[in-house]
Amino acid sequence: MDIQKNIDSNKIEENLRRILYIENAAEHSLEWAMNYITFSPCKRVRPLLLIEANKIFGTPDEDSHLLSAALELIHTYSLVHDDLPCMDDDDLRRGVPTIHTIKDEAFAVLTGDALLTRAFGILSRYSKIDKLPAVLKLFADNAGYGGMIKGQVLDMEGEGKALTPDQINEINVYKTGCLLTLPLVLGALNGGANKIYLDEVAMLGRYIGIIFQLQDDILDIVGDTAALGKNTGSDERNGKSSIPLVLGLDAARAIMENTKEKAMRIVNFLPANRDFFSNFIDFLISRTK
Amino acid sequence: MDIQKNIDSNKIEENLRRILYIENAAEHSLEWAMNYITFSPCKRVRPLLLIEANKIFGTPDEDSHLLSAALELIHTYSLVHDDLPCMDDDDLRRGVPTIHTIKDEAFAVLTGDALLTRAFGILSRYSKIDKLPAVLKLFADNAGYGGMIKGQVLDMEGEGKALTPDQINEINVYKTGCLLTLPLVLGALNGGANKIYLDEVAMLGRYIGIIFQLQDDILDIVGDTAALGKNTGSDERNGKSSIPLVLGLDAARAIMENTKEKAMRIVNFLPANRDFFSNFIDFLISRTK
Repeated sequence: MDIQKNIDSNKIEENLRRILYIENAAEHSLEWAMNYITFSPCKRVRPLLLIEANKIFGTPDEDSHLLSAALELIHTYSLVHDDLPCMDDDDLRRGVPTIHTIKDEAFAVLTGDALLTRAFGILSRYSKIDKLPAVLKLFADNAGYGGMIKGQVLDMEGEGKALTPDQINEINVYKTGCLLTLPLVLGALNGGANKIYLDEVAMLGRYIGIIFQLQDDILDIVGDTAALGKNTGSDERNGKSSIPLVLGLDAARAIMENTKEKAMRIVNFLPANRDFFSNFIDFLISRTK
Repeated sequence: MDIQKNIDSNKIEENLRRILYIENAAEHSLEWAMNYITFSPCKRVRPLLLIEANKIFGTPDEDSHLLSAALELIHTYSLVHDDLPCMDDDDLRRGVPTIHTIKDEAFAVLTGDALLTRAFGILSRYSKIDKLPAVLKLFADNAGYGGMIKGQVLDMEGEGKALTPDQINEINVYKTGCLLTLPLVLGALNGGANKIYLDEVAMLGRYIGIIFQLQDDILDIVGDTAALGKNTGSDERNGKSSIPLVLGLDAARAIMENTKEKAMRIVNFLPANRDFFSNFIDFLISRTK
């Protein structure tokens, strides 16, 4: 599975561009920076997951593209802020220089703020108005202080400390897992899933998050900077614990396999689109970028 | 008019506390920081304006309190990010040390992100669901890259440059005006105003924003740090232009009076609650904190 070369991924990119690209952005303006980082080459994992989760229960519609676009903005803002000099201080992201290296840190903070605010603005165009409160709550809960941001704070506070695997897992569930659970639940909700399926799909998202993070941490040790579009070795450099750093590469791979088994028990129970999720999980485990 | 001592202000504070206070926040955690800066003493100008704008057209309800709470979170996040070392580098806000001086800059960035995200989460509880898309759009448009954040970028880019009064006004309209127009339009919309009144009230908000910013800039020159709860002289120190710095205090006061006249032409045309807005504008012009 090459998720950047299949037809659906091209459609996803087209839709993101149609919904998110800001016309007439002057060079190095705020709008320029928003376009620059949003449309630098990347995997679009979250929009893809959202559309495919939607397909389990119904045909993707314009609402699913709006949700994908809003989610991709949230993910993108989190990268911009994560890369700041006061945070991880990374100069490369999505294969291009980070915004603060082009202009300055204050401008990068504001670019992230603008991306985050715009995500919720995009949601104002969501047409299934009866579901809009639930959609808003899902976004805020998973991206906010009880979700992704909690994970980022825990991650920072764990720097330079010898964390246990349980503590590392907790960080990963919040920091990465919430924003990978979100597309599955949003897609399922938009597609018309009932409560039982929403819970199952949320659990699948959690497992996918664990697998994704484990491979991310493995690639941070054994990966290639050019292929990844970001610098490797950043965990060790920043004094961060990760499962492969603490338990070793073999143990990390064994946990991935075990998590895959649990994920596949849910995939096999889905009413449709089982092949995609089965292939996607294999892709996550074998990816090199 | 002492807006911190009238009965409605106490009710506003009570409602903000009921809606926004996060229980069981451990010391120096993310939730602690969110409570800390949200509930440090301040004027609550925007919630007050929202409730009073609502009263022009109907009785304030729980929805008006939710809108006020969300708006106050947006305002508060903007202060946290504005005070960052990479931005204005202020160590005092709302009479207390800024978050980055207590912990660090990364933590303050994340606290701001969490406040902004939570604002939109609060809106998921807004009960007039048919108005929710318009509410979301108003928040995102006024707080985002076409509103407040645009103003902050223009403001930064103007540092150290000799700006014309027109350029300074443009910055002020975006940086301050948008977040003072927003409560008036939200309150009016929630109260049931029609399109014509929404436009009039938006224009009133724009004038109130101009008066507010002029007095803010005057107090930055002649005000008292202890009364204001923030350091004075920051504009000159940061190489920022302001109307009183460029045209002098007398000219700034004359523009305020002229803007007041235009604002009063709208106030006199409101169907109700004219006294509040008349008194409020007088308060803005005479305030010392």
